[in-house]
Formats: sequence, C-alpha cells, structure tokens
Amino acid sequence: MDIESTNQVNKVGVLSRFGGFLKALPRNLKSKFINVTNNVKKIGQDDPRRVIHSLKVGVALTIVSLFYYSRPLYNGFGVAGMWAVLTVVVVFEFTVGATLSKSLNRGCATLLAGALGVGGHHLATAVGERGEAIVLGILVFILAAVSTFIRFFPKIKARYDYGVVIFILTFCLVTVSGYRVEELFDLAHQRLSTIIIGAATCMLISIFVCPVWAGQELHNLVASNIQKLANYLEGFEGKYFHSLEDKEESKSLLEGYKNVLNSKASEESMANFARWEPGHGGFSLRHPWKQYLKIGTLARECAYKIETLNTYLNPKIQASLEFKCKIQEPCTKMSSESHKALKAISTSMKKMTQPSTAKIHIENSKYAIEELKVALEVISLEDVELLTIIPVATVAAILEEITISVEKIYESVSELSHLAHFKSVEPNVSPEKPPLLHRGIIKPVVDIDNSSHVEITIQDICTDSPEKATKETGEILRTM
Amino acid sequence: MDIESTNQVNKVGVLSRFGGFLKALPRNLKSKFINVTNNVKKIGQDDPRRVIHSLKVGVALTIVSLFYYSRPLYNGFGVAGMWAVLTVVVVFEFTVGATLSKSLNRGCATLLAGALGVGGHHLATAVGERGEAIVLGILVFILAAVSTFIRFFPKIKARYDYGVVIFILTFCLVTVSGYRVEELFDLAHQRLSTIIIGAATCMLISIFVCPVWAGQELHNLVASNIQKLANYLEGFEGKYFHSLEDKEESKSLLEGYKNVLNSKASEESMANFARWEPGHGGFSLRHPWKQYLKIGTLARECAYKIETLNTYLNPKIQASLEFKCKIQEPCTKMSSESHKALKAISTSMKKMTQPSTAKIHIENSKYAIEELKVALEVISLEDVELLTIIPVATVAAILEEITISVEKIYESVSELSHLAHFKSVEPNVSPEKPPLLHRGIIKPVVDIDNSSHVEITIQDICTDSPEKATKETGEILRTM
Repeated sequence: MDIESTNQVNKVGVLSRFGGFLKALPRNLKSKFINVTNNVKKIGQDDPRRVIHSLKVGVALTIVSLFYYSRPLYNGFGVAGMWAVLTVVVVFEFTVGATLSKSLNRGCATLLAGALGVGGHHLATAVGERGEAIVLGILVFILAAVSTFIRFFPKIKARYDYGVVIFILTFCLVTVSGYRVEELFDLAHQRLSTIIIGAATCMLISIFVCPVWAGQELHNLVASNIQKLANYLEGFEGKYFHSLEDKEESKSLLEGYKNVLNSKASEESMANFARWEPGHGGFSLRHPWKQYLKIGTLARECAYKIETLNTYLNPKIQASLEFKCKIQEPCTKMSSESHKALKAISTSMKKMTQPSTAKIHIENSKYAIEELKVALEVISLEDVELLTIIPVATVAAILEEITISVEKIYESVSELSHLAHFKSVEPNVSPEKPPLLHRGIIKPVVDIDNSSHVEITIQDICTDSPEKATKETGEILRTM
Repeated sequence: MDIESTNQVNKVGVLSRFGGFLKALPRNLKSKFINVTNNVKKIGQDDPRRVIHSLKVGVALTIVSLFYYSRPLYNGFGVAGMWAVLTVVVVFEFTVGATLSKSLNRGCATLLAGALGVGGHHLATAVGERGEAIVLGILVFILAAVSTFIRFFPKIKARYDYGVVIFILTFCLVTVSGYRVEELFDLAHQRLSTIIIGAATCMLISIFVCPVWAGQELHNLVASNIQKLANYLEGFEGKYFHSLEDKEESKSLLEGYKNVLNSKASEESMANFARWEPGHGGFSLRHPWKQYLKIGTLARECAYKIETLNTYLNPKIQASLEFKCKIQEPCTKMSSESHKALKAISTSMKKMTQPSTAKIHIENSKYAIEELKVALEVISLEDVELLTIIPVATVAAILEEITISVEKIYESVSELSHLAHFKSVEPNVSPEKPPLLHRGIIKPVVDIDNSSHVEITIQDICTDSPEKATKETGEILRTM
C-alpha cells in the first residue's frame, strides 16, 4: 500500500508537473512573443526610417526581380539577369552615401576587372592548351594575393574595400570562365549592364524616396553629442552644488555623455560615406566633413574629463561644506556658462548658423576661471582639513579643464561654420561686464615695498539664489 | 631689341621650366614610388601575418578557380561552379572566427532560403500563369522588407548580418529563376554543393595554414592594452615626480594609452568572431569571451582617468614644490604599485596564469592611498597658497581614482582566470608590512576633552632616493 501510494503520489506529481509544463509552454511562448513584438516596436519607434528603409529595399528588389523574371528581358540578358538581383541585395544600404559608395565601387571594379580579365583570358589561351591552366593559376594567384594585401592599407580599407573584393571576384570569374573570347565580351557586357541596372535602381530609390543622408546623420550626431555634454554639466551642477534630487529623467540625461565616449567608429564611417554624396539640404558637395571628425575628437576629450568628474558626483569622503560654499559661485558659473555655451553651439549647429551666441558664454566661463583663482587666493586655510577640501578642489580643477575643452569645441565649430559658410546671426545678448571683482571676492594687493600685511575677511557667499549673493560684500582691513 | 630679349628670356624661362618639369616628373614618380613601397614595407612589417593571409587567399582562390576551370568538373556543376569562386572571395577573412562565421552563415542561409524559395516558386506556379508574377512580387517584397528590418536588431546585426543578406539573395534567385521545379532542385543542389566546396576550402586553409585566431587576438589586445596603461603610469611617475626628461621612445610609451580609449569596436567584433572558433591553444570552445569585454570596459575607464591626468603633466600654473614634496612619497607609491600591478596582470594574462603576483602590488597601492590620507591630514596649511597646491592635489586625487580602477581590473582578470581555469602560480614576493605609520608621517590624535592643541612639524621628506627619506623623521611638540 505504502509503495503504491507513493507511486500514485509520484505519478500525480509527474502528471501535474507535466500539466504545468504544458500550461507553461504556451505561456512561455506568449511571453516570448510579446517580448519580440515589444523589441520590434522599440526598434521601429527609435528610428521610423528603419521601417521605410526596409520597404524601400522590398520595392527595389521586387522591381529588379520582376525585371529579371519577365521573359523578353530574360531572353535578352540570360542568366546574367541575376546579377541585378545580387547587386540590389548587396549594395542597398541605410544611408545614401553608403549605397552610392558600394554601387560606384562595384561598377568601377567590375569594369576594370572585366577588362583585365579579358586580357588575362586572352593571354592564357595564346599560350596553348597545355600551359593554359598554369598561366591562369599564376594570374589568379598573383592578383588575388596582391589585392588582398592592398585591402590592409587603412585608406583603401576605409573607402574602396568593397571595390577591391569585387575586383578580385570579377577578374577570377572572367578569366576562368572557360568561354571563347567572343562569348566573353558578351558575358562582360551582360554582367556590366545588369549590374548597372541593379545599382541604378538602388541609387535612384535611395536618393529620391525618403533619403537618409550620411552627411546629415553625421552633422546631427556631432550636434547631439555636444548637447549631451551640455546636459551632463547642467545635471551635475544641480546635483553637486544645489543637491537636487535625482529624478528618473535627469538620470538618463546625466548618462547621455557615455554614448559620446565611443562615438569614434560611427563618426568616421559616416564621414567616409558623406564624401560620396551629392549636395543636399545645406550641405554642398565640398562640405568640410573632415572638420566634423576634429569636433568629434574634441567632444570626446571633453567627455573623458566628464567621466572623471562623474566619479566625484557621489564622493566617498565627506567633503568640506564650508570650502564648497566658498568656491561654489565660480564653480557653478564655470559649469553653467559651459553648459550654456555647449547648448548654444549645438543649437547653432542644428540651425546651421554661426555659433556667435555661444561666444558670450565662453567669455563668461573664462571670467569664471579667473574668479575661481581669485577666490582660491583669498581663502584662509586655518582650521581647514586638507583631506576634506581635496575632493572639492579636484572637482573645481576638472571643471576648469572642461571649460577649456568647451572653448576648444567652440573654436572648432566656428572654423566649421566659416568653412561651410553657415549663416551669421547677430547675438542679441550683451556680454556681461567684466565681473572680475564682484560678489564679495576681492583680489588682495600686497605692497611688497612696505612689507604690509593684508588681512581679508570674506563673508560666506554660499546661497541658493545668486541675487542674494550680490548683496553681500567683502571687507578689506588694511593694516600698515 | 628690348622686347626681343625679354621674349628670349621668357622662352628660355619657359623651356627651362618645361625641362625642369620633365626632369621633375620622373623624380616625382620616383618619390611617389618610394613612398608607396615604404608604406607596403611598413604594413607588412607591422604584422607579417598580413602577407601570409594574402598568400593564403591567393592559394584558396587558385585551387577553387582551377577546380571550376577543369572541364570534367565544369560539366558536372555547370555555371554553378562560379559560386565556389564567389564564396571564397567573399568569405575568406583575416581571422579564423570571421571566416567560420561567414562560411556558416552563408551555408545555413543558402540552405534555408533555398528550401523556402522552392516552396515559394511552387506556390507561384500553382496560382497559374496570370497570377504568377503578382504572387512572386508579393513574396519577394514581404521577405525582403522583413529580412531587412531584422538586420536592425543589434544581436542579429552583430552575428548573423551576413547570413540574412545571403538569405534574401538566395530566396530571390531561387523564387524568380523561372526554371521548372525539377530543374530548380538541380540548381539548388548545385549551388549548395559549390558553396560548400568554396566554404570548406576557406575554412580548412584558414584553420590549418598559419591560423590567425580571433580569440587569441582578443586575448592579446586586452593584455597589451593593460600593458599600455602600465607604461603610461611608469612614464608619468618619472616625468612628473622625478622630472626625468622626455626621450623619443618614452614619448611613444606615454602616448600608447590613447589607443586604449577607442578599442571598444574592435574588441566587440573580435569577441563575436571568437565565439565561432573551435578550441585552440589554451582556449576551449566555451572560453569566457564575454569577460574580456568587461575587462576592456574597465581598462577604458582607467584610460579615461589617465587622459584627464595627462592634462596635468605639463601644468599651466606653477605648482607648489613644497606641497608636491610632502605628498610625493604616497603618490609615487600609488603610481608605481599600480603600474607594477598592471604589468603583472598583463604578464600573467599573456602567460595564461592566475594574476596572483599582482595581488601584492594591489595591496601596497591600497596602503599607499591610506598613507596619502595620513600625509594630507598632518600637512600644515599655514603659508600655503591654495592656488598652487590644487594642481598637485588634483593629480593625487586622480591617481587615487586610477588606483581604485586598477583594483577593479585586477578583480575582473582574476574572475577571468577562474572562469577559464588559468594555471595558478605561487607568488614569490612577500607582501610589504603594513606601512601606515612610517617615514616621518604621523597621524595626530586630538584630545577633544582637554581641548588640547596639536602642533606638528613635518620635516621635508622630498628626496630622490627613498632610502634617504626613511632616515628622516617627524617631531611632535605637544603643548598643553
């Protein structure tokens, strides 16, 4: 009985587990399905042009396929018609620049390799039937090895890699095809014309149906990267100096700069594709795409400093609040003017105007550096623990470096706006008066000849509102 | 006469200039030729495996071409033989992983798309001659659009991008081919077998003739990146604290870390390829390649901090030498122990042993952080200009962050060594005795109850040789 009941319990257990599995199976499948649909939705919503691109590829392939399929044309081109299909599949890329680059690479390489291939074939047949295979083998070996080696040249790799691949391919196909030379010309002609049909379809659709320009993408990427740096500085100021609490949205703003750190590869590839594009929108054929790479490098340098700054956002050591208050004003000013400058630069880039509105903020941020120096010179260090002021001092020093970095970005974007003839706009904000001596910070003048002592008392200027701070003043007690 | 002589002078000028041009032409060509050959030499010498790879591609292509060319085989496979050539050209990559990934992607995609394509073709012919083109068009459109959209999924993009391209390609070719179904099976069979021949040739040659393993490359890259960080810290220590002069070779060592900043893309692609590789050398099939990405991220985080540190190597403001001397010892210790730890980690990675020798240096560098804190606590801030100590303090603070970063790298590499079962070695260096209180730095104890004053005089411990420093001691004068 005991064994039986155990068996029964076991059976029930197994059955119920199996039933659970059966029930869980559709549930699992359902949750997986929901997961995938959510993923699809997200990818489509992130950039709806992806959906449009997919439809464009569908249209191009359908056109070329039916063209290949329709009998009269098929009889004209023979099997070579499939090269049109092949070309569309391989050549159609997301951006116009990439599509043009691949199409032109494929076309030119096919033409060149076709001509060379016919020559090679001719040479091989001239040797006679015995030596033919040997000559062919040697030719293919030399060309394949040399071309493969050429692909390691960085410049070739960046711009003509696909062309070299197609060059090897076509040369081998034509040389080794085993046709008679007259047939060869037909073959080469058919292949070239079908490739031109495929490539032309891709190029026309990618240029005229909702085009995605690599140049525009690069322009937007660099501008939005600068915006991300600005967002960080704004968030940092609020969190570090005004102890504002973290909201969910501000968190994502604070972490945006991390994307800037690894933007090099995509910037370089887009700049490469942008060179292939005709003029579009505000971008001429000779738009200075290289300058974007320079700006990108400077933006990354700034992002590296921000990454270091970020480690001090939640300091491990209790920082001296007193010291923080004393240098808070110039520091917040550096940070806020830098972020305003970055925002202005980003906005002017997006509007394709000269970044003249940023100039004022750059000047102000430079004053703020001077103010920081003055503030540091007059701070009395009695009763101060060095250990607690170092984290704050480091933040100030890194902010200074970031300010210098921002100025470099400004200069580089100015250069771009001159090179690309961006519209100039009159700034409608007047620059701040030289604010070196204000808000209670006074530069002490030491009269060395009289060996005078200078004693300075600074009133605490740590406030939440700058208006309040301006009312407070410092005092000079000069004892001779 | 005047005009004539001028004319003659002009003529002579033009002629001599033209002669110069003619002479310059071959000179220009010669210099260009020399330039190119130097470039070729450099690329070959930088990595001789590039030359070997080029030869391997040449051999593979020659074999497949002659195979296609030889008549008996040619009659067997027909024009489909050219797919073997095409496969070799497109699939043969520098690393084994990349070649395997492309070969397998191509093979599987062709098989799947071939089957689906035959089905699609069957469906279209079943509809009747009128609807055939419409059904074909709809099928091609849907499949092309959906497959293109799938390519935007990051995971698919990273691993199966090439497979999806080949899937679309084969499906279109098979569906639209216009053959009767019996012929279609022949075609699909021929295509598949020629692709297998091409892919197998590539895989065999890339695995058995001087293989370049993506996994090994990734392993070496990560190890050498850690080495580069170590080199920088070593160079920084010499230049900043001991004011050693710049040599040409040390300059290149100092700038090596810049390569680490932008290593993300290549690390990720190599990790992707490494998954496709069979076990080789010390790497099993299930080697934890993901862990290398984690180590790479930590190495980059350390490099970002080094980039910030680098701006202080040539400071704009004269730093306080006195202050620098006072914290020089713990700072040089942090820096030297960190670089020793990084070197040990890199060496142990290269030897595939556990990084136990680095542990001592990690411990020492942690002591050094404590020493720095103690040193900072006792430094008297009288007669010190804050402005001149901030650059030095910032260097100390960033060095501390780098030290923490190095510890994280150590932990991550330790994890890797456990996951990948690296050999364990006994460290032959005994850890340093707890060095918290030594070399003249004394932690002051303030007795609050008695409201006692603590006055501390620190003797200068700035020396070039640490031996000298140990002889100097601090004094405590306690006044009650």
